Amino acid sequence: MEIMSKVFELKEVADGFEIYLNGMTILKHQVDHPMIFVGYGQEKIEMYRGNFDIRDYVIERTALRYAIVEEKEDSYLIQLRKFEKCEPSLILVVKEEEQRLKVEFIKAEPTINRFWLRVEADRDEKVYGCGEQLSYFNMRGKNFPLWTSEPGVGRNKKTYVTWQADVKDRAGGDYYTTNYPQPTYVSSKKYYCHVETTAYADFDFRKQDFHELQIWDVPKFVLFEAADTFVELVEKITDLFGRQPELPEWTYNGIWLGIQGGTQMVEEKLQRALDKGVRVGGVWCQDWQGKRITSFGKRLMWNWRWNPEEYPNLDQKIKEWKKQGIRFLGYINPYLAVEGDLFKTANEKGYLALNEQGETYLVDFGEFYCGVVDFTNPEACDWYKQVIKENLIDFGLDGWMADFGEYLPTDVVLKSGESAKLMHNAWPVIWAKINYEAVKEAGKLGEVVYFMRAGYTGTQKYCTLLWAGDQSVDWSLDDGLASVIPAALSTGIIGCGLHHSDIGGYTSLHGNKRSKELFQRWAEMAAFTPVMRTHEGNRPYDCFQFDGDDETLEHLARMTEIYVTLASYTRQLVKENAERGIPVQRPLFLHYEQDQASYDIQYEYLYGPDLLVAPVYEQGKTRWEVYLPQDEWVHLWTGQVYNGGTVEVDAPIGKPAIFYRKSSSYRELFERIAKI
Amino acid sequence: MEIMSKVFELKEVADGFEIYLNGMTILKHQVDHPMIFVGYGQEKIEMYRGNFDIRDYVIERTALRYAIVEEKEDSYLIQLRKFEKCEPSLILVVKEEEQRLKVEFIKAEPTINRFWLRVEADRDEKVYGCGEQLSYFNMRGKNFPLWTSEPGVGRNKKTYVTWQADVKDRAGGDYYTTNYPQPTYVSSKKYYCHVETTAYADFDFRKQDFHELQIWDVPKFVLFEAADTFVELVEKITDLFGRQPELPEWTYNGIWLGIQGGTQMVEEKLQRALDKGVRVGGVWCQDWQGKRITSFGKRLMWNWRWNPEEYPNLDQKIKEWKKQGIRFLGYINPYLAVEGDLFKTANEKGYLALNEQGETYLVDFGEFYCGVVDFTNPEACDWYKQVIKENLIDFGLDGWMADFGEYLPTDVVLKSGESAKLMHNAWPVIWAKINYEAVKEAGKLGEVVYFMRAGYTGTQKYCTLLWAGDQSVDWSLDDGLASVIPAALSTGIIGCGLHHSDIGGYTSLHGNKRSKELFQRWAEMAAFTPVMRTHEGNRPYDCFQFDGDDETLEHLARMTEIYVTLASYTRQLVKENAERGIPVQRPLFLHYEQDQASYDIQYEYLYGPDLLVAPVYEQGKTRWEVYLPQDEWVHLWTGQVYNGGTVEVDAPIGKPAIFYRKSSSYRELFERIAKI
Repeated sequence: MEIMSKVFELKEVADGFEIYLNGMTILKHQVDHPMIFVGYGQEKIEMYRGNFDIRDYVIERTALRYAIVEEKEDSYLIQLRKFEKCEPSLILVVKEEEQRLKVEFIKAEPTINRFWLRVEADRDEKVYGCGEQLSYFNMRGKNFPLWTSEPGVGRNKKTYVTWQADVKDRAGGDYYTTNYPQPTYVSSKKYYCHVETTAYADFDFRKQDFHELQIWDVPKFVLFEAADTFVELVEKITDLFGRQPELPEWTYNGIWLGIQGGTQMVEEKLQRALDKGVRVGGVWCQDWQGKRITSFGKRLMWNWRWNPEEYPNLDQKIKEWKKQGIRFLGYINPYLAVEGDLFKTANEKGYLALNEQGETYLVDFGEFYCGVVDFTNPEACDWYKQVIKENLIDFGLDGWMADFGEYLPTDVVLKSGESAKLMHNAWPVIWAKINYEAVKEAGKLGEVVYFMRAGYTGTQKYCTLLWAGDQSVDWSLDDGLASVIPAALSTGIIGCGLHHSDIGGYTSLHGNKRSKELFQRWAEMAAFTPVMRTHEGNRPYDCFQFDGDDETLEHLARMTEIYVTLASYTRQLVKENAERGIPVQRPLFLHYEQDQASYDIQYEYLYGPDLLVAPVYEQGKTRWEVYLPQDEWVHLWTGQVYNGGTVEVDAPIGKPAIFYRKSSSYRELFERIAKI
Repeated sequence: MEIMSKVFELKEVADGFEIYLNGMTILKHQVDHPMIFVGYGQEKIEMYRGNFDIRDYVIERTALRYAIVEEKEDSYLIQLRKFEKCEPSLILVVKEEEQRLKVEFIKAEPTINRFWLRVEADRDEKVYGCGEQLSYFNMRGKNFPLWTSEPGVGRNKKTYVTWQADVKDRAGGDYYTTNYPQPTYVSSKKYYCHVETTAYADFDFRKQDFHELQIWDVPKFVLFEAADTFVELVEKITDLFGRQPELPEWTYNGIWLGIQGGTQMVEEKLQRALDKGVRVGGVWCQDWQGKRITSFGKRLMWNWRWNPEEYPNLDQKIKEWKKQGIRFLGYINPYLAVEGDLFKTANEKGYLALNEQGETYLVDFGEFYCGVVDFTNPEACDWYKQVIKENLIDFGLDGWMADFGEYLPTDVVLKSGESAKLMHNAWPVIWAKINYEAVKEAGKLGEVVYFMRAGYTGTQKYCTLLWAGDQSVDWSLDDGLASVIPAALSTGIIGCGLHHSDIGGYTSLHGNKRSKELFQRWAEMAAFTPVMRTHEGNRPYDCFQFDGDDETLEHLARMTEIYVTLASYTRQLVKENAERGIPVQRPLFLHYEQDQASYDIQYEYLYGPDLLVAPVYEQGKTRWEVYLPQDEWVHLWTGQVYNGGTVEVDAPIGKPAIFYRKSSSYRELFERIAKI
């Protein structure tokens, strides 16, 4: 008797077995072709301000060559042994569960803390996802350590900025460093693979015949699910991880202006923008709770309540702005600066994580120190939710940046007794969940929006909006304007369909200064993302600002007008994301599966099914080369029709390379936009 | 019955055994404390102009936990197994041979190509050697890949020069990159350990309780030998590897001036030096066989015969100079430029190594290409020796730089059928041996001297003199003046006791230019090494030259006078090196074993037993801090007596920090020198 599954098939072969998913060989095991290796290692993990130096010493790594397959009622039980005549090291339970192929792992050899799984691969297969990947959308050909951290400044060991950041602050990062990793990938063979673990992982896509997934623990299970189309596949992914709610309607009123410096400054800058015709949906004031100055630049106070000295009369102003259709957004993160009253309260109540000596663990955030709210303590979580509800929501905030989440040190002692090494990756999601529950308990889901950069498995459900983290204010591929496009595509393909970024980027270090041109190009791209939002940058005086001159304000007015006009289209995409998990920004192959070239495009995207956006991400360009999949595409600004292939179009400032599908039902809307 | 050995003792313990050397536990094996791991891996080795990018993918690494020890007539035979009930993976033969502990390895599992041996270590133990190490004399705390290569430009990932060299030419190197690696280390516990292999190796001295020696092959054997003193230990090391002959007597006539540009240029520069009182032992003209210009700088023609266009009348000049006590030195290396007649001959005769397609393998040496003389072909070796004898020795050369040896590509096809991966490290020694035999067959040992930068196990016997390779013309610790001191100490401790370096350094790239001060400081140090020799540098016009101004010539005249005057002392040291293997430049602990601080001194050296040299290796310094072991030390220039500890002395240009032992029998000589 064979186990009946429509999802997978397990066939015993000489010395092993093969598992088929949707007709594909997905796992294959034989004595001479082992599928799993186990071992143990000693890692060395050092954190410096959110940047991690992680080294491993693998003491043993052994193939589990010998398999015994047993058929149970609704599953296969597979014992894996190192030698023919020894106890099993690992037991696998292979079954169908909720129409997915699930392989559970039971550790039988207690010393195992390293685990490698090989998944069968084709030579020309491509893989995507693994959280938010800023350098490579298609990850084939590289390995991707999966550990939430600072994304790095420069993120390319060959750039001078990266080298300076490394040498001065250990902060340069690399192609894989990200705030939001996730042990889930999507294959061009139309399946996804998800590993259920929070341990450090490293997915290696360099081998021709297999992907090797390394996890520093035996994972609970691995899931595989295939689909007939990529659209169906992303639906299935979000069936698994959950889906984001829709954005609040007020978002579509216009841009969120990032302004700091107190009530009067906000009033002045806002008025100037409105006078120039900028459509404004909100003002976002990080320093609503106070600020401090460090050598890095302008930083915040990290005591999460209204600072009336910095923002006199803010309670009233929020109400006035709301009447004008302009919402107020603030800032919070999961750490408490030692100087604040919230730190004092949390410390007294025992809500902060401890060090190995039983003292409050203080984390260096760059010339100031903070306690870590211990999210493994349910009371601490409840208290922090209360802080969000009272100090943020009740005060009148309709949104905030829910920053950070990546800094859990691996030597922190947690209330639950759980290992910080295993909780490190879990932290961003607990942080998201606390925000989610606070908003939900306040009855404000769909009305309040918070945006996060950190993430991990589960972010899909608990984070209302992603932002791409801290880009450098430059044109670099790995850390500048271009990098947010693969970021949006990679998170989108694994179920986080709402993405946006700081217009103009954030990090101004090592000689980087934000230019007017960069700001304008970034704003043009942002008009074709779910949310437009500006940021002053870490060093506002080194960064060109939205109100830097009249021309820029006028350009921004036009771009926000486009954004607002496009809302009837965007709203539909956002709804589709909430209901089916189809991301707003989409890789070309999502709708053009037959087009082989589209699988390698990472600096263009489909904005919904009907718009193709090719942001100009190089300095000084007024013409731009665009790849169009086979279809009838109308160039937005000229009306010229193209049938696919590589085309070059005029793309001066104000006219980014945008195309719409000729047969789109939104054609009239797009034509209206072309005239703005 | 126990095997009687005065050298080692093997004791069986529960589940294993322990091996004692001179009373120390040197190897220890138990089921829970395995001594050897084996496995297999797939390496990826890429060479770009002598710089290697080497990556490994270790597929399996398994402890050999289960040992069966059998006593044979004069040895122990140990079978090592992965599991209790399986075939042995490795067989060890442990025995005494020529008063050394020898552990032979017999591979029983054919797939093994990775091997890790753990040697017991103490926490405060220090280790030295491993060939020529330019960044760390004491290697504890780091791992050292052992693979002959370009040493790197900058050699420190935190310097801007290194970063530029990496990004522009993949040439930056790192702390361990060296022309001369060797799988042999000396422990502060007074033993040496030598691994007999030419495979890629990586000795890891980072662990507190053991050293882990990784070899990409099962080595033939490992040797251990202990001694009661370090002096005795270096004697034993050179008993094993062989000893260098003495330097020719003419060496002590003075400096070897590195001059290029043709006969007339040499005449002029030599005369100017002589006029200024510089004591000259030789002129060294690399371009005696012609030159070429590349973007790197001035390069040579690589066709090993007199170039009469470049050097008219050289045959006569050599004789004239010889009469004046000035010898002529040239240059050769083991590659043949495609443009030359020697390439043509070698190619026709089949003396050049081939590529996988059976064509002559051409190596890129930086804008020009060369064939590799195949030293696994005895006929090619004989022919090359003949080239040396006829074109160099018979022509009148009394010395030469025998350059390179590190560039054997790993995908080259060799006549003998041996793997290029295994021959790569062996190459420098074969190259040394060819020089040695050519000189010996010409009856010129002790009269002709050649100097090399590349080396490996066996260099001790076959190389008449080392030079430290291509330093940057700067003050950097890892690649400048300072770096040649650990280089001399590390090679000295494993039996290469004759070392020197390019006065002023060589590599002038990425903005580095040689200053007058650097040249002078380097010359001062060189006066206290076996040989003084200048080099123009790769970009002569970016480098201050020995005849850059009168002051420098006068300084050099004084330093060469010191060198020549010191010859009666130096000659004794060189003799001691030839007879007993005690290096000329010695670490402080060689004679002050009780002095714990001396074990970490790497930028000072004893020049023989009676002089302590502390070169000024920082720019703009006129005072210098020196560590003196407990003894009575007389400061050379002031006569002030110190009793040890850290002292600070005046050390302006011309008066480097030099001390002599008050009780030295050479005291009068030193006092004479102090007055020069």
